[in-house]
Amino acid sequence: MLAAMPDIEHWFRTQWLEHAAPFYASVDLRNSGFKLAPVDTNLFPGGFNNLNPDFLPLCVQAAMAAVEKICPEARRVLLIPENHTRNTYYLRNVASLTNILRQAGLEVRIGSLSPEIIEPTLLDTHDGHSILLEPVKRQGNRIVLDGFDSCAVLLNNDLSAGIPDILKNLEQSLIPPLHAGWATRRKSQHFSAYNRVASEFAELLGIDEWLLNPFFATCGKIDFHARTGEDCLAANVEAMLMKIQAKYKEYGVTQEPFVIVKADAGTYGMGIMTVKSPDEVRDLNRKQRNKMSVVKEGLQVTEVIIQEGVYTFESINDAVAEPVVYMIDHYVVGGFYRVHTGRGTDENLNAPGMHFVPLAFEGSCTLPDRSGAPDALPNRFYAYGVVARLALLAAAIELQESDPLN
Amino acid sequence: MLAAMPDIEHWFRTQWLEHAAPFYASVDLRNSGFKLAPVDTNLFPGGFNNLNPDFLPLCVQAAMAAVEKICPEARRVLLIPENHTRNTYYLRNVASLTNILRQAGLEVRIGSLSPEIIEPTLLDTHDGHSILLEPVKRQGNRIVLDGFDSCAVLLNNDLSAGIPDILKNLEQSLIPPLHAGWATRRKSQHFSAYNRVASEFAELLGIDEWLLNPFFATCGKIDFHARTGEDCLAANVEAMLMKIQAKYKEYGVTQEPFVIVKADAGTYGMGIMTVKSPDEVRDLNRKQRNKMSVVKEGLQVTEVIIQEGVYTFESINDAVAEPVVYMIDHYVVGGFYRVHTGRGTDENLNAPGMHFVPLAFEGSCTLPDRSGAPDALPNRFYAYGVVARLALLAAAIELQESDPLN
Repeated sequence: MLAAMPDIEHWFRTQWLEHAAPFYASVDLRNSGFKLAPVDTNLFPGGFNNLNPDFLPLCVQAAMAAVEKICPEARRVLLIPENHTRNTYYLRNVASLTNILRQAGLEVRIGSLSPEIIEPTLLDTHDGHSILLEPVKRQGNRIVLDGFDSCAVLLNNDLSAGIPDILKNLEQSLIPPLHAGWATRRKSQHFSAYNRVASEFAELLGIDEWLLNPFFATCGKIDFHARTGEDCLAANVEAMLMKIQAKYKEYGVTQEPFVIVKADAGTYGMGIMTVKSPDEVRDLNRKQRNKMSVVKEGLQVTEVIIQEGVYTFESINDAVAEPVVYMIDHYVVGGFYRVHTGRGTDENLNAPGMHFVPLAFEGSCTLPDRSGAPDALPNRFYAYGVVARLALLAAAIELQESDPLN
Repeated sequence: MLAAMPDIEHWFRTQWLEHAAPFYASVDLRNSGFKLAPVDTNLFPGGFNNLNPDFLPLCVQAAMAAVEKICPEARRVLLIPENHTRNTYYLRNVASLTNILRQAGLEVRIGSLSPEIIEPTLLDTHDGHSILLEPVKRQGNRIVLDGFDSCAVLLNNDLSAGIPDILKNLEQSLIPPLHAGWATRRKSQHFSAYNRVASEFAELLGIDEWLLNPFFATCGKIDFHARTGEDCLAANVEAMLMKIQAKYKEYGVTQEPFVIVKADAGTYGMGIMTVKSPDEVRDLNRKQRNKMSVVKEGLQVTEVIIQEGVYTFESINDAVAEPVVYMIDHYVVGGFYRVHTGRGTDENLNAPGMHFVPLAFEGSCTLPDRSGAPDALPNRFYAYGVVARLALLAAAIELQESDPLN
């Protein structure tokens, strides 16, 4: 990847001529040493507060570029966050994001969809910042705040609970578009686009696509409570474990293959299961069924994606860690390690819990040291940035293809 | 400027929709406390080595954006530096610039026009880096190095000595274009464009344009040796000193007005004179005549620009300092203070000499602190970035208007 850097960047440049990058995104990666792959692409990234403050100018510059492309005429932006008004860490993300947009020269106010916000409300973050949430109102085909009518609306709300009526048929530019929300988005569509991206990129590098791409399969019409669809799940798990085993053999990997079963729509690390044998999905107890059947906002899980599990070989102070890379427009602006002391190398780390610690990348993802070792920190960060951009490109294609106006 | 930030950034966005920014530029500013104005805009900036290394990612990101706009298909770039192969500080700039372009994902090699470079030659910078200069060869309508044919050629050579034949009628993209070189460029054309930019911007802010814009006038057909054209010069100096005096009176400034007389074409702080009375340009001694009559590369001065002098109120350790702001595409990527212990507050600081010290800006120019004092460092840097971008916009308009294909 280091040697091919000019080819890689040239390839990305030509891709971005054809596909419009999402306004922003974060990508969860897993690095097993023999394999580096994206496992989740978030189009409404939280966690901007976890980035290294030294790289704030990079975020601001990228936000300027993004605004120029999407809404150059915009002067004001209405930011719509999630309804987690009690999660002071999430509020800190909203404060960071607001700051980036303001430094990019926009007038920004925060409009809440939460039924609890009925008047302008000052909320404090965990570290003493405060943000002003104002109730959003509909006026004709626009959403506004008192005395604030913006030409663009930036969503930091992934619409897990469905598309609220107040956001339907707006004449303002809605960024990202509504079909990027979990009300319509499917992980399987994303990874299907990623298959094509990874395949073309692997060909460019002359490597096995598997080294960048986890296998996946889907099962629809699952009801964890009624225990329907279990056969599809078990069969897919079994087939995938065998495919992984064959690859592990080819590359001399001695670890035990595993798969991750998760909701095809949804986020926040809910409804996720690590599976090492098809029997495990046949013998779920009541607690596991409950856990799997509901994701954020109480949404029922009926479609699942079965994804090859990728061990994380990264650890920080003996705790397992996975990198999360942040992008604005098609620029990598930073990232952090999700560090979890209470979890194993084969588990999802995007889980709530007091053992979660974000650790900002100390360097940028754009300054590889081609004279250094492949695993030197700047080079590892560069590789993260490359694979994250592959996932971003897949998201761009996915959004293009799922656009209802297409 | 701080309060109007959203309006300012919106205005710049709309301007960049109409005018293509130069690939890169640096702008010398003078800050007198009551006035902040550009005094020189360099379209072939040296001194990238003087920027704060912490902001290298910002340069790389901006270079990526610039390459995407100007030559997205480019994979290789041939960089053509000045012929100062013995100036180890300039060579260090070439090394820094090469590094930025490489980190942006381009294959870069350095082609020299110097007659001294007849084979690949490794040259050392003052601080132990080394760069490889290779002789440029013409092949049909392309310039190439041995085994290196690039689709784009980046000039870091300001063509003071005229346009060499080897660069004429190339089919490769030449960045910046030939007419940006001092062989054709005139400071007066730049400041004439700046007049229009500053006037529109001042109207946006509701301020007196003079606070951002130095007066200027020109005299053509000057021969310092034959003492022709002196009357034009003296008359212009006198008229301008009176105009400045009137403005000083309006704003209660008690300093003595002065003007700078310099070559209309050319750079490098040669052929520059500080003048406080019209008599001074009538009584030049032989040494002053010699100094004024020749700029870089032995070019004869026949046209001069008379520019309002702006005192610098900035000093660092008792030495006078002036800010220089660097831009790639339309992004401000950093800057430094030109600090000169041997010069006065009314003198040009872009002069060679052992008392010149570059001091990198410690912060970025894009993160104003709107809750801080107007003169707080982040806010001062933001103002520098704004005025530098005004000069950049003037350069964009100037290049558009002077394009021989127009």
